[in-house]
Amino acid sequence: MAAPSSNTCGLTERSIRERVPPLLTDLYQVTMAYAYWRTGRHQEPAVFELFFRNNPFGGGFTLFAGMQDCLLFLRSFHFTDEDVEFLRSVLPPATDPAFFQFLRGLDCSGVTLRAIPEGTVVFARVPLMEVAGPLAVVQLLETSLLCLVNYASLVCSNAARFRLAAGPKRKLLELGLRRAQGPDGGLTASRYTHIGGFDFTSNVQAGFQYGVPVAGTMAHSYVTSFTSLEEVLPKTLVAVNGDSTPVDIILLTKGWLSRVCELLGSQPGKIHEGELAAFLSYAIAYPQNFLPVIDSFSVSCGLLNFCAVALALCELDYKPLGVRLDSGDLCRQSLEVRRVFRLCSKHFSVSAFDSLTIVGTNNITEQSMAELNEKENEIDVVGVGTHLVTCTQQPSLGCVYKLVEVRASPRMKISEDPEKSTVPGRKAVYRLIDAEGHAFLDLVCLVAEAPPEAGVSLSCYPLSCDTSCVSVIPAQVICLRQDMFTKGRVTQPLCSATETRAKVQSSLQTLHPRHKRLQEPDSYTVALSEKLHTLVTEIREGSSNNSNFLLAN
Amino acid sequence: MAAPSSNTCGLTERSIRERVPPLLTDLYQVTMAYAYWRTGRHQEPAVFELFFRNNPFGGGFTLFAGMQDCLLFLRSFHFTDEDVEFLRSVLPPATDPAFFQFLRGLDCSGVTLRAIPEGTVVFARVPLMEVAGPLAVVQLLETSLLCLVNYASLVCSNAARFRLAAGPKRKLLELGLRRAQGPDGGLTASRYTHIGGFDFTSNVQAGFQYGVPVAGTMAHSYVTSFTSLEEVLPKTLVAVNGDSTPVDIILLTKGWLSRVCELLGSQPGKIHEGELAAFLSYAIAYPQNFLPVIDSFSVSCGLLNFCAVALALCELDYKPLGVRLDSGDLCRQSLEVRRVFRLCSKHFSVSAFDSLTIVGTNNITEQSMAELNEKENEIDVVGVGTHLVTCTQQPSLGCVYKLVEVRASPRMKISEDPEKSTVPGRKAVYRLIDAEGHAFLDLVCLVAEAPPEAGVSLSCYPLSCDTSCVSVIPAQVICLRQDMFTKGRVTQPLCSATETRAKVQSSLQTLHPRHKRLQEPDSYTVALSEKLHTLVTEIREGSSNNSNFLLAN
Repeated sequence: MAAPSSNTCGLTERSIRERVPPLLTDLYQVTMAYAYWRTGRHQEPAVFELFFRNNPFGGGFTLFAGMQDCLLFLRSFHFTDEDVEFLRSVLPPATDPAFFQFLRGLDCSGVTLRAIPEGTVVFARVPLMEVAGPLAVVQLLETSLLCLVNYASLVCSNAARFRLAAGPKRKLLELGLRRAQGPDGGLTASRYTHIGGFDFTSNVQAGFQYGVPVAGTMAHSYVTSFTSLEEVLPKTLVAVNGDSTPVDIILLTKGWLSRVCELLGSQPGKIHEGELAAFLSYAIAYPQNFLPVIDSFSVSCGLLNFCAVALALCELDYKPLGVRLDSGDLCRQSLEVRRVFRLCSKHFSVSAFDSLTIVGTNNITEQSMAELNEKENEIDVVGVGTHLVTCTQQPSLGCVYKLVEVRASPRMKISEDPEKSTVPGRKAVYRLIDAEGHAFLDLVCLVAEAPPEAGVSLSCYPLSCDTSCVSVIPAQVICLRQDMFTKGRVTQPLCSATETRAKVQSSLQTLHPRHKRLQEPDSYTVALSEKLHTLVTEIREGSSNNSNFLLAN
Repeated sequence: MAAPSSNTCGLTERSIRERVPPLLTDLYQVTMAYAYWRTGRHQEPAVFELFFRNNPFGGGFTLFAGMQDCLLFLRSFHFTDEDVEFLRSVLPPATDPAFFQFLRGLDCSGVTLRAIPEGTVVFARVPLMEVAGPLAVVQLLETSLLCLVNYASLVCSNAARFRLAAGPKRKLLELGLRRAQGPDGGLTASRYTHIGGFDFTSNVQAGFQYGVPVAGTMAHSYVTSFTSLEEVLPKTLVAVNGDSTPVDIILLTKGWLSRVCELLGSQPGKIHEGELAAFLSYAIAYPQNFLPVIDSFSVSCGLLNFCAVALALCELDYKPLGVRLDSGDLCRQSLEVRRVFRLCSKHFSVSAFDSLTIVGTNNITEQSMAELNEKENEIDVVGVGTHLVTCTQQPSLGCVYKLVEVRASPRMKISEDPEKSTVPGRKAVYRLIDAEGHAFLDLVCLVAEAPPEAGVSLSCYPLSCDTSCVSVIPAQVICLRQDMFTKGRVTQPLCSATETRAKVQSSLQTLHPRHKRLQEPDSYTVALSEKLHTLVTEIREGSSNNSNFLLAN
């Protein structure tokens, strides 16, 4: 099935070709491709696997993302004349010219990709993606695939953690564009944080391109740009349901300001005229969407001005939205703000004040987000920027891409560091579910093995302990990987950000809370089948016995 | 002067429009623009300044980068019909349709930009960029400018620190593409780490687009893909200067392997045939560029195989390049590798072995780079990926964009946190140089003030201590900011990455070593002129006296 148009998923052939030209790779992929070609091995069937070795942020899980960009990259992969000419200038002059002809004709029509669907909860050392095809081609794809998966999965996992920390009810707003790794980094962050559980982004292009809901009202500069009520134009507003007589909104607001000051026992001298002018002009422009930032001077001052303008709007039957707090102790401030809203609602009988939204944005970290569940507060929407998009806690995910088979023969990298050794051969991956519907073990088998069966006991070797065998009985078995790309075509429908976002939440629901704990989670078991474990043992022993090369030859 | 073509600087109108469409901004910029437009203030002349509040990485300096992208962004800034239609769908239905007509016609022909040249050493709280123009337009530019400057300056500064840690002689190779924030993040990293002092990148697209020298040879997968010498084709090589008789390079290498094993007292049983096959096939493809990774199995095994193949190449008058070490204790290994190279050179009289390069790549941090200067080692080239491009130590630079003037009247944000208060008014920035040629103070003045003069004493107020005045006599005065963009045109020649890279090094040379120390540097002084200090004091006092708004009005 071909990909739907860019209207549904925001992904187009052209945009991926612009973002990920085939030269966006490490030079050694090209030098190796030439060496393979030169020795006549470039067409040998080879299989690479993509996986990571540790969950990020000290967590118990990761969300797999970036898959769709990988598919579009494969589909559009080819070198232009210009690309090839540049490579000719980089490779040594003695490079056989026929190699550049070969490059010019390359595409991914011989490549097959099987992968876990985007938005699935995944774990360390599970092969997420299997890329099979001609040795030189699948080698050339490495860097681009890693680049597309690494940050997408990292930031999506980070967003999911913020979502877990925030609890399900609070709305989350991403506003990291200005602190991201450049424009495209910011766009990627907006897309994948939405998929990971954020509700809105401030990034308009992410709305345009990926359909992520956008949100935002005003910055402090809007407030500080005003000095006087003289600057407010027009000075009138028409009531929603009244006749069309313009009402002097400034006069109306001044009246409300007096009453609010009286109610709260505040000094009118605390009021900042420029701020009131800013709020009024904004309310006139957006009478149904009034949500100013109220701490440009002080929260107490901003709150008085907000209440006055919002009460004037209510008198004209408009419904103000709320306020944004951008500095200081957000929890404490939100309690005071809510107290004043309730007081106004009761005293002035304006029910709209019962449902005002309080937005908090002030250098929020995962920890400060988690504290919102512990400390009393009235914050409805939290905006997160820097720590979300840059993933301050751990700014990279270490996905790797390793050779596991050549010419149908398994390959294994044996390292002195056991964690760095690879698991050889083509595989199938199954997720075992217990009687309560929780995932409890990911089983990595050889592709030729019969799949595990529900209700049937099986023996396997957890990767955490190298030698001991365990027996388990799954209540349900899910085959994790699917065919995604065959013969140059994408074979699964591409999903919109919203669809993948829903997958993330349902995948997270299958995970037991003990694996989802943000701090010191129980580690999830990933295990090898008996046959795969035997293969690993054989190759390892064979390596120490048979790798010697007879000099006498 | 218009920008040169993409041949010299790799920057084109189209590529910047693709990377930074005008919708790549925070929604509140657009909502504020409408509110300004609605109240008739959108054409008011306004001035914003871009600066950061702290040097990154606990350092004493920052490198300013991203400027050229900003200029091209300004030059190409306009909303298409499609952009405007999307904004219409996002803004409230009551938004005046005439506003969208206004947006459609917007460009930066009324915008003036003065800035410090890209590649200059800069300090916290110095206004790097001044953006003047119609209020609504300069507000709309905020997010994009911040996004273009923040990561570029951060990663350039990080690269400069790695360069300082490495010392001037060691060659540095950037290889972070797979760990960057997506494709464009990786490309930006390759460009600005080169500007910051790296010599090469592995990123081919960065070579193609920005002329950064590219480097790279082989990965472990190349080595593990081979199992037997049968796979090596062709099996012959022609000597450089001999007749054209093909020589059996496998036989030749086997002979050298025996001799090397004998020289080093090594067991031939340690040899891995697949690795030898990989090295041989690579050497046949690149007889003049032989530099394999030698630790796929063990360094001792890889070193024997390298020496055998390299000696065979030398016998045919080729010049092998060296080896790459990718795991374990690089310093210790490099000493052993160099010892063996020297032994071979002496024993077999091959002078090429005296100048072999040792490349080290193993999760290098700034700290491990600095340790290379303390521990004995023989590493000539260091490759850095993750920690360089993700800026692990501090993954974001907090540049901000603040309003300083509207309708020729200074604006100031007064915060309870003194560091968050802004400095009002249009300014000029001067760098004062001492008699030894070192920069010692950046002076921020009002634009109308006479510039400081060399040899003449001046009084100023360092920003670190709010009240006390100091007197200084500069030996030389440099005006830091230049006109960069006026009336829709870029007014400075755009520089190639190589040119800006040279500027970075010469700018760093003017900085005293005490400010360049990577740990606990002496902080550089940034000061306000007396007149500017007076203005700040007046506005601050005026704010506490006069901001009250008479409810009786």
